[in-house]
This record gives sequence, structure tokens and C-alpha cells, in this order.
Amino acid sequence: MSLSIYGKNPIIEALKAERKIVRVVIMSGTNADLVDKIKENEIPIVFLDKQKFKETYKGVTQGIVAEVDDYKKWTLNDFLSEIDVKKDPLVLMLDEIQDPHNLGAILRSAEAGGVCAVIIPKNRSVGITPAVIKASSGAIEYVKIVEVTNLTQTVEKLKEEGFWIVGTSLDGKTSYEEIYVDRPLCIVIGNEGKGMGRLLKEHCDLVVTIPMLGKINSLNASVGAGIIIFDIQRRKRG
Amino acid sequence: MSLSIYGKNPIIEALKAERKIVRVVIMSGTNADLVDKIKENEIPIVFLDKQKFKETYKGVTQGIVAEVDDYKKWTLNDFLSEIDVKKDPLVLMLDEIQDPHNLGAILRSAEAGGVCAVIIPKNRSVGITPAVIKASSGAIEYVKIVEVTNLTQTVEKLKEEGFWIVGTSLDGKTSYEEIYVDRPLCIVIGNEGKGMGRLLKEHCDLVVTIPMLGKINSLNASVGAGIIIFDIQRRKRG
Repeated sequence: MSLSIYGKNPIIEALKAERKIVRVVIMSGTNADLVDKIKENEIPIVFLDKQKFKETYKGVTQGIVAEVDDYKKWTLNDFLSEIDVKKDPLVLMLDEIQDPHNLGAILRSAEAGGVCAVIIPKNRSVGITPAVIKASSGAIEYVKIVEVTNLTQTVEKLKEEGFWIVGTSLDGKTSYEEIYVDRPLCIVIGNEGKGMGRLLKEHCDLVVTIPMLGKINSLNASVGAGIIIFDIQRRKRG
Repeated sequence: MSLSIYGKNPIIEALKAERKIVRVVIMSGTNADLVDKIKENEIPIVFLDKQKFKETYKGVTQGIVAEVDDYKKWTLNDFLSEIDVKKDPLVLMLDEIQDPHNLGAILRSAEAGGVCAVIIPKNRSVGITPAVIKASSGAIEYVKIVEVTNLTQTVEKLKEEGFWIVGTSLDGKTSYEEIYVDRPLCIVIGNEGKGMGRLLKEHCDLVVTIPMLGKINSLNASVGAGIIIFDIQRRKRG
């Protein structure tokens, strides 16, 4: 299946990562700085005039769209056969994240924060859409996405491999600062509205919360994920 | 000026905060659970059928829209006359944030993270739009927004009042973990694409960065802000 990537940075990152790009469509008179780079890589370019381009591609494109092969998704088994649990890997599991901005921002945080894979459910979650790719600012090229059919079964499988499963919830009893970082970890981030599913929460070794000081006390899902990922990295650094 | 708030949670928070609501418009057959609450507050309700409602209000509304008075914005002087610098307040300054999702998510983090005001420039920044209000999930009711015409002059004024000004940048030389938290602080978050302006950066007492481990190494602006706010709070707690 093919997929469109919108915008300058995501396309620059796709080029750097040597992703197979089927063709690039540019709005005439824009993105002159990228044309040589694309030609060097022997990728066909189609130029469309402004009106035609805008009719074809909706949304924020910065006048450039690339058609690429679908992003590789890993199976859990393939992923597990590739990693070394002795190195205390950090993985993220997303329980039905719906908003493409959030998934994109989480992929950025994962890439920058040393997360080696992001596990998403096949159904009831936003997929890898053009909006997610754009919001990820190129990070999607470097983060392994593991797609699974059942999160609870996946958690049990990860436990067998030595992972600690850490859920996140507004009503968690432990602060995120107390997560042990000297072991393989899977951090579970809940849905934007409902949080983590009840059954999945019951399968966690620990459920943490982020202490807050206000009246509303809810964080955007991608912000919450970022705070936890970077606190883990801070403590891993020592 | 009046302004529309879209969606269930933002409207529930506006009710709780006793904001003046001019009227509520509901898509017939939806939000039955809110009708009594709205009537109790003696706010007029208009019911529109689905088609009419969708013609009138675009975007994600969850079938409910409230028209409210404009959000109060503080002047710098009014804000400074209200706070006690001896309590080491934390304020946030946003240097031309453009994306309403980001501004909304930053307001949520500010509210939950003990930030006492968010300073935004009058121009070249996203304003308090319905999309920002929705993304803030009600946090906007409880965060002081200080609108200023010139960020550099504002920084100098804050310095006179005893604030330390901490910029953030990918090329900062100091890690965010080293920010002193025992003093009044103003953290400056840059624009999504360009980061902080050069002149503003020169006026900072310190420019910090978030150490990263990947290839892309950029974070969503609201995620970066959240990581820094919550690390400061973590250390203030002790």
C-alpha cells in the first residue's frame, strides 16, 4: 500500500532514511531547494500548478507531497527476537490513542528519548496517517512501530521476556519518579479521554501517576508520555 | 467580544469556574446530561437539529457550543502587582507559538504544573481561539494569561522584579535539570519551527536544553514545555 507524506521536514527525513519514495509532487514555484536533492535520488517529480495542487492535496502540505511505500510495522515476535533484554530496553504501549497530533508527538518523544519501540493496537487506535507522519516531524523513520491485536496478551508476553509493565493513570498511587529504571520497561499510556482500560490496568506490575498542583489536573496524553520518558532517561543517565 | 467554546469538558469547566456564559447551543438529542446543569445556572439554551447545527458549527463540537465573554487577559503590571516574588513563582513565556493544539496543551501543563501565568505576545502568536480553548480542556479557566507587546522588554521588567530568565534551545549548553528552582523563574519556550528569537535568547540568564538520544532530536513544543515544568515541580517538592 502507498501513503502520502506532507511537508518539507518529513520528506527530508524520509530521504535521509533512504525510504523508498515512489514519486514527489511539488506545487510549481515552491520548494526549489529540494528539487536537486530529490533528483539526485532518482525520484520522479511531478509539478502541479497552484490550483491543481490545492485541489488534489488538502491540508497543510507546504507545497510538497511524497508518495511512499507503507511504513513497516513489526510483529511482536520479530521485535522481541531483535532486542537484547539485558540492555534494559524501554518500550511504550499506547492504549487507543485517537488524536493524530498526539501520536505524532509521542513518536517524536520516543525517538528523542531512547524508546526502542512503540506498541499500538491494530484496531481502535489512530493509524499511521499523513497527519501522524507530519506531526512526527520525521521521527517515524527511526521508531519501530509494533502492531498487535491484543494489548493484554502482549503485556503477558512481555512479562515472560522479563519486562516490567508500568501503567499510567490519574488515580495511580505511586509517583512516576519511583519507576525502577534498571530493568526492561514497558510504559502504558492510556486513551485521551478514558485513560487506560480496566483489564489492561489490572495486568500492570505498577500504576504510576504524575503529581499535579491545579484544579483540572489532566495533561495532554503526549505531554504525559514525554514527562515520563524523559524522567526515565534522566535517571538512567544517573 | 464574545467567543465560542466547543465540546463537553471545556463547557463543564466554564460552568464550574462560573464564567459568564451568554447562551448554549445544543444539537437536539445530544448532551441530555448537561441540560439540567445549564438550566440551573439560568443560561439560555438553543436546540438546533443535527443538520442546522452542523451547518452553523464546524469542527469537533460533541454537539455542544457555548458563547462566552472573552477571556480576561492580564497586563504585565497588573500581574506583577498581584504576585509575591518571595514565593518563587514560576511563569512561562511563549515566543510565537503558532499551533492551537500546542498552546492548549501548554495551558493544561501550566495549570497542572503550578505555573502562575503564561505570557504571550500580542502579535505573531496564536490567540485564544475556540481550538485553543478546546485543547486546553478547561485549563484556560484557571491560568492567568498575560498579553504583552514586546517580549524582550518584558524579560527586562521581570529581571528587575527578581526573576531569573531561562531560555530553551536545541543548542543550549546546560541541561534543564540544572535550573535553580529556589528563585522566581520565567521559562521561555520558542516557536515550533524556529525556536526562540535570537535577541530574546541574548536577554536570558541561562539557556537550557533537553538531552536527547535519537537522530531527529526535536520535541513537540508542548511536550518540551511539559518536561521542563514538571521537572521543576519535582525538584521543588524536594
